[in-house]
Amino acid sequence: MKAKYLINAALACALSFSTSLVHAADPLPSWNDTIPKQSIIAFVEKVTKEGSADFVPVAERIAVFDNDGCLWVEQPMYFQLFFALDRIKALAPQHPEWKEKEPFAALLKGDVKAALAGGEHALAEIVMATHAGLTTEEFEKVVTDWITNAKHPKTGKLYTEMVYQPMLELLAYLRANGFKTFIVSGGGIEFMRPWTEKVYGIPPEQVIGSSGGLKYEIRDGKPVLIKLPEIAHNDDKEGKPVGIQRHIGRRPIFAAGNSDGDLQMLQWTAANTRPSFCLYIHHTDADREFAYDRESHIGKLNKGLDEAKAKSWTVTSMKEDWKTIFSTRKK
Amino acid sequence: MKAKYLINAALACALSFSTSLVHAADPLPSWNDTIPKQSIIAFVEKVTKEGSADFVPVAERIAVFDNDGCLWVEQPMYFQLFFALDRIKALAPQHPEWKEKEPFAALLKGDVKAALAGGEHALAEIVMATHAGLTTEEFEKVVTDWITNAKHPKTGKLYTEMVYQPMLELLAYLRANGFKTFIVSGGGIEFMRPWTEKVYGIPPEQVIGSSGGLKYEIRDGKPVLIKLPEIAHNDDKEGKPVGIQRHIGRRPIFAAGNSDGDLQMLQWTAANTRPSFCLYIHHTDADREFAYDRESHIGKLNKGLDEAKAKSWTVTSMKEDWKTIFSTRKK
Repeated sequence: MKAKYLINAALACALSFSTSLVHAADPLPSWNDTIPKQSIIAFVEKVTKEGSADFVPVAERIAVFDNDGCLWVEQPMYFQLFFALDRIKALAPQHPEWKEKEPFAALLKGDVKAALAGGEHALAEIVMATHAGLTTEEFEKVVTDWITNAKHPKTGKLYTEMVYQPMLELLAYLRANGFKTFIVSGGGIEFMRPWTEKVYGIPPEQVIGSSGGLKYEIRDGKPVLIKLPEIAHNDDKEGKPVGIQRHIGRRPIFAAGNSDGDLQMLQWTAANTRPSFCLYIHHTDADREFAYDRESHIGKLNKGLDEAKAKSWTVTSMKEDWKTIFSTRKK
Repeated sequence: MKAKYLINAALACALSFSTSLVHAADPLPSWNDTIPKQSIIAFVEKVTKEGSADFVPVAERIAVFDNDGCLWVEQPMYFQLFFALDRIKALAPQHPEWKEKEPFAALLKGDVKAALAGGEHALAEIVMATHAGLTTEEFEKVVTDWITNAKHPKTGKLYTEMVYQPMLELLAYLRANGFKTFIVSGGGIEFMRPWTEKVYGIPPEQVIGSSGGLKYEIRDGKPVLIKLPEIAHNDDKEGKPVGIQRHIGRRPIFAAGNSDGDLQMLQWTAANTRPSFCLYIHHTDADREFAYDRESHIGKLNKGLDEAKAKSWTVTSMKEDWKTIFSTRKK
């Protein structure tokens, strides 16, 4: 019995090794054979080669990825904002006062632009009204229902179908080489966690994001955490290295982003005493996705492009370097 | 070449399986064969048995452990406070004003009791003065130097030699069964991370603790994170479920603590819809360690003892249930 168990275990192991060998033939099939792909593979081979001066132990192979515009689309506006708008519509019957109160009144009339004219304050009001007050478990259910059913207004696709196939391959390739992959996003941590494991293979404990206050309470004899209408951590710009330090406590050796909001995360990674790799995704493909950079209101990439050039970071052009853009796997 | 690689890989796998089988004979050799050990093993076997109604998938096998008084000693005072005191002595030459200023003046005269008479305010002053102002990397170095060299004033041992052997075995046993082990401590997150991987096998990204503010800055062209003199998260009592939610985003199925400060973490774990296990370590051994509970100023266990009884949580008596207390492995 024991011997049989060992043999089965050995065979299962051998099989999984053999599968990786087959995949190893081309770990990034949706990437054209241009500089970005070559650089990524050269980096991974270098840091995983035992005995080499550039070798990085598995425990230190930390890879961090922005989410909006890096793993999935962020146009014409952040998907979390579509979620918030849908939620305002759903909650409106319980809030008759919203008919007279901005930014809600404009939103309920379908005028997103007018609603957002209130700037950060309006945005904060929208997020608070739609994200706070629930328990973490109630909120998780709301997000799960939405992400399973809601469709993007322009493409008619599920939001989780608008993820980038080349990036899914990159995540899998890094993990197959002993990297631990994390999301480090300005998006809400509890908006992402319900679906990142299924869609990206990234478990909740490896998701870092903006977060609100939480309050522990016993309700009807059961402990719950209530989401408070306050920001505990803004995981953008300077907040990204702070979030990384707080959650991971180690400096990454690999970072990918697509906007100036990711610049500090890339700087922090580039200053690792270990070899490191910084990747910017450049949205250059108006036909297959969107084209935007220095002047965009969402996902602005201006300083980042200059710094990438000055520091020889890798910039991948979606138009030139990606064979396919979207994942065809059904979520 | 490929075939040989596969055979070697298979053999390596088989070997590791066979090693686990040998260890499985008694996974908790430092525990007496009493109720706590039997309950722990019964729980682990239950949740890892595929096909059983109580089976819990690997991804959800989250185990959380308090640190002070649960994994290592916390008497006669928290080890982090010994660290702070040593640091005040080391920093005193740069702070001549401390000679006249409490709580520092009392501390420098060796009168810890008088210094701490100032209560939480005094404690906060001590922690700020000794933990803030440095970059995270400078602080890591200070902690590493201290933990490698400083000796406990009563036992003359390194602090990392005062860890509990039965708990090391429990951590290893859970990990061997697919659990991910986390520390959830009121202690400072950056005070623990430099040594928890070596001592407990718990990597920095699985350490949750109290944390201060951090500020991102470019200094001499290099990005650094400066530790600020402010509390960002107090990971004690109600703060423990909050810390768990923020870092892990999943409810644990196993929790171990030793004081009322862990009660909310145990409540939160016990209310999992999955089968769960709550363990209280009861300090009952004045000869081999310390004996304290309901009246103690440090590690008070009062409400927790009552709730454990009411809810049938497992309470392990160090005197009755533990064959050995301390790890003999040199750190």
